Amino acid sequence: MGTPLQERTPAPHGNQAALLAALRALLPREALLVSEEDKRPYECDGLSAYRRLPGLVALPENIEQVRQILRACREHGVPVVTRGAGTGLSGGALPHPEGVLLSLSKLARILEIDPVNRTATVEPGVRNLAISEAAAPHGLYYAPDPSSQIACSIGGNVAENAGGVHCLKYGLTVHNVVGLKFLTVDGELITLGGKALDIPGYDLLALLTGSEGMLGVIVEVTVKLLPKPERAQVVLAAFDSVEKAGDAVAVIIASGFIPGGLEMMDNPAIRAAEDYVKVGYPVEAAAILLCELDGTDVEVSDGIARVRELLLNQGATEVRTAKDEAERLRMWAGRKSAFPAVGRLAPDYYCMDGTIPRKHLATVLRRIGELSREHGLPVANVFHAGDGNLHPLILYDANKPGDLERTEELGGRILELCVEVGGTITGEHGVGMEKINQMCVQFAQEELTQFHALRHAFDPDDILNPGKAVPTLARCAEFGRMHVHGGKLPFPDLERF
Amino acid sequence: MGTPLQERTPAPHGNQAALLAALRALLPREALLVSEEDKRPYECDGLSAYRRLPGLVALPENIEQVRQILRACREHGVPVVTRGAGTGLSGGALPHPEGVLLSLSKLARILEIDPVNRTATVEPGVRNLAISEAAAPHGLYYAPDPSSQIACSIGGNVAENAGGVHCLKYGLTVHNVVGLKFLTVDGELITLGGKALDIPGYDLLALLTGSEGMLGVIVEVTVKLLPKPERAQVVLAAFDSVEKAGDAVAVIIASGFIPGGLEMMDNPAIRAAEDYVKVGYPVEAAAILLCELDGTDVEVSDGIARVRELLLNQGATEVRTAKDEAERLRMWAGRKSAFPAVGRLAPDYYCMDGTIPRKHLATVLRRIGELSREHGLPVANVFHAGDGNLHPLILYDANKPGDLERTEELGGRILELCVEVGGTITGEHGVGMEKINQMCVQFAQEELTQFHALRHAFDPDDILNPGKAVPTLARCAEFGRMHVHGGKLPFPDLERF
Repeated sequence: MGTPLQERTPAPHGNQAALLAALRALLPREALLVSEEDKRPYECDGLSAYRRLPGLVALPENIEQVRQILRACREHGVPVVTRGAGTGLSGGALPHPEGVLLSLSKLARILEIDPVNRTATVEPGVRNLAISEAAAPHGLYYAPDPSSQIACSIGGNVAENAGGVHCLKYGLTVHNVVGLKFLTVDGELITLGGKALDIPGYDLLALLTGSEGMLGVIVEVTVKLLPKPERAQVVLAAFDSVEKAGDAVAVIIASGFIPGGLEMMDNPAIRAAEDYVKVGYPVEAAAILLCELDGTDVEVSDGIARVRELLLNQGATEVRTAKDEAERLRMWAGRKSAFPAVGRLAPDYYCMDGTIPRKHLATVLRRIGELSREHGLPVANVFHAGDGNLHPLILYDANKPGDLERTEELGGRILELCVEVGGTITGEHGVGMEKINQMCVQFAQEELTQFHALRHAFDPDDILNPGKAVPTLARCAEFGRMHVHGGKLPFPDLERF
Repeated sequence: MGTPLQERTPAPHGNQAALLAALRALLPREALLVSEEDKRPYECDGLSAYRRLPGLVALPENIEQVRQILRACREHGVPVVTRGAGTGLSGGALPHPEGVLLSLSKLARILEIDPVNRTATVEPGVRNLAISEAAAPHGLYYAPDPSSQIACSIGGNVAENAGGVHCLKYGLTVHNVVGLKFLTVDGELITLGGKALDIPGYDLLALLTGSEGMLGVIVEVTVKLLPKPERAQVVLAAFDSVEKAGDAVAVIIASGFIPGGLEMMDNPAIRAAEDYVKVGYPVEAAAILLCELDGTDVEVSDGIARVRELLLNQGATEVRTAKDEAERLRMWAGRKSAFPAVGRLAPDYYCMDGTIPRKHLATVLRRIGELSREHGLPVANVFHAGDGNLHPLILYDANKPGDLERTEELGGRILELCVEVGGTITGEHGVGMEKINQMCVQFAQEELTQFHALRHAFDPDDILNPGKAVPTLARCAEFGRMHVHGGKLPFPDLERF
């Protein structure tokens, strides 16, 4: 958000003509896209408010070709933006106008499913869901499930540290990746982790996960597989106030439950979803919770009984347990269609992503309502309540002059609110281009300085995805918003983290 | 292991006289130890085979004093070795003879127990067990439980990424730390993570965890707390062959169980433990498994029944379920006393630590037996079977000329065997001084080069714990053992990872 995109476009880099000649000699003809028409599909990722054409698009078919592309780019000083399926929501794969858009979509082989060690080893272009499909014959699956899981690729999941409904219990991508192979900017192949529990040396495995294509190019991923739970059961609870729903979430977690999913929708989101998919949600409720438990049959039956009791004690006006698998899937269908459903309420919507300590849920939701009114833009809330990961959806009209700018301004305020209560500006979407200014609020100057030093230990010439994720100090100075660690709270009703 | 210690002592560094004068001006008199007598207790950590006196010992009482010590050391070019409780088993806190031994034992305050977010924020000198004791009134505890948990401090746990019996289900330290504050070599305070799920920017939280004091000095730690399981129950199974026990482990895990603990002892370990604590272990068995399940009452009862059946199907000669809490604790007492028990069989013993993919358990145990005979040194095996973390105990006599060298040689061979089957040279003890040569086997030249580049992004002058954990390329050349990624296997019976 913040300053409009054109001011953000980096200055021209390197010798593209020489690079193109070099790549033509190295790669098959169809592996290079140079015409505007061919490059058009790559002008943006899931954050479609931001678009720009790449200098050229490279579609390598194997690691050796990726290595050659990186070496040529390094030699000619041309930036490289790596892209998976392009479903990212923070603009991490937004092309560089003077650079190479490196698509890994053709590196899409499943290399191994190992049922004894419960791991899958795949190329970065493999779709998230395809891993679970390949593991299914062994009764195993890959837990992290972004809502884009049919389309998104594992390489992109790793680059952005993607999450999903089940991350409350099973963790983010970083908690489910056990091994990586990546190419340095010099084209050196580095192997991290593997099938064993601990790794000596510095933990580059977690460092590369979520590094948004700025430290290296991931060419192989080994992930943990989990046994499919014997049974899953979901409870829907309705509340007459968002605060009560927020408090119920805290109580469920504090009671020791780690639900497979614990999702919350506020009234605008409930109405939109019900209107769209007709799943029988209570449209009068101020908020609903969907709480799913998974595990063995007895474990789930026992847990569901306890959770129902907890919800009623917390003042739920209605508690409904799915009576069969069909009803369970219907309850989730409403939640899963919430984004498109809310999208029908306005020409455009902006999906935010921030995380807060659970205890602040109720206060933060109230404050978001106030910010929404101040900016004159409606906001619907659909989110992973169990892990405090908010997804406010801001409704706007891109064709109305100033609407996008006000949306970006409101979005920025919401992210800063997350930081002020001790949370962060991301939950599962990454920083990319979208939240780069809010990084100035999240981190202090010496922290950003350390990030840049680290980045230069991998990429001395800033060739890998330059200008993303970690702002320069100059940019923060220009943005002018204060870092708030230990700062004073503008909202006295919010407890300091 | 490898070359004797004296050859390893780094060359003199910096201006110690000037540093001492500077520190005297900055710190209270009792915060500096300079006499040989006062420094003697700091000459080694848990790896007592290696000892050397530090140049001087500093005992700061707060973050500001740590900051001043670091700035003075940087200014005068004097190395700093940070130490927690000194229980580490890989020599990570072995002093530098020309440097400052920085003890954080006085930074031992519990700053916050937050039951709603289920976190504890503590200073690095707080003992591992003290965190669980402080959280107990809320029904919470801190999961990672190194066997030294009564004495070891959380700062050291983070620096070495410590593990424990419960890591199979609850993960290593890195999976349980949610926030860190550390001082850079320049004395800048950097805050990482916090109570929210995801963190924008590079994942320095995991990078610092396990970095063995070489990237910064950790001054505050926020860890995840878990609800105490309602019930824990253990099953003991005896087998007439180590292979059958190893296969049973693989089957239990493949069946989807994630036991709270899944431990294995071979016959020498069983006999030693039984002889020492008389808990009623079957002393004729070739191997025993201890499998503990925890969770809700129904969940545990259901699981125990299934596990018993699995173990019998896998050919267990006896399966015994603890009939009450007293018997459960007795069964564990044998396992927990196994190291000292085995220690009674010889004047000295060397506790190894490596990790392998579970499917190779049986083969690797057989191969360790062969190596033991080749080197003429008895080896007892007591280990975390569920996560493939081996702890072979080599029995030797330090007073017998050549015995320590042969022990180090055998230990080195065992670690290299772990790498050859796709495992690693650490499970939970870190690399430190002990395994630095094996790092040459674990990693390729370009990987070590990247480690050094990363290290210099934090510590350009190699002042923080120099000479530990990551070997120089020169050292590897001198050590002369080959890195084996994709290399040829010396043991044709071992499947390539």
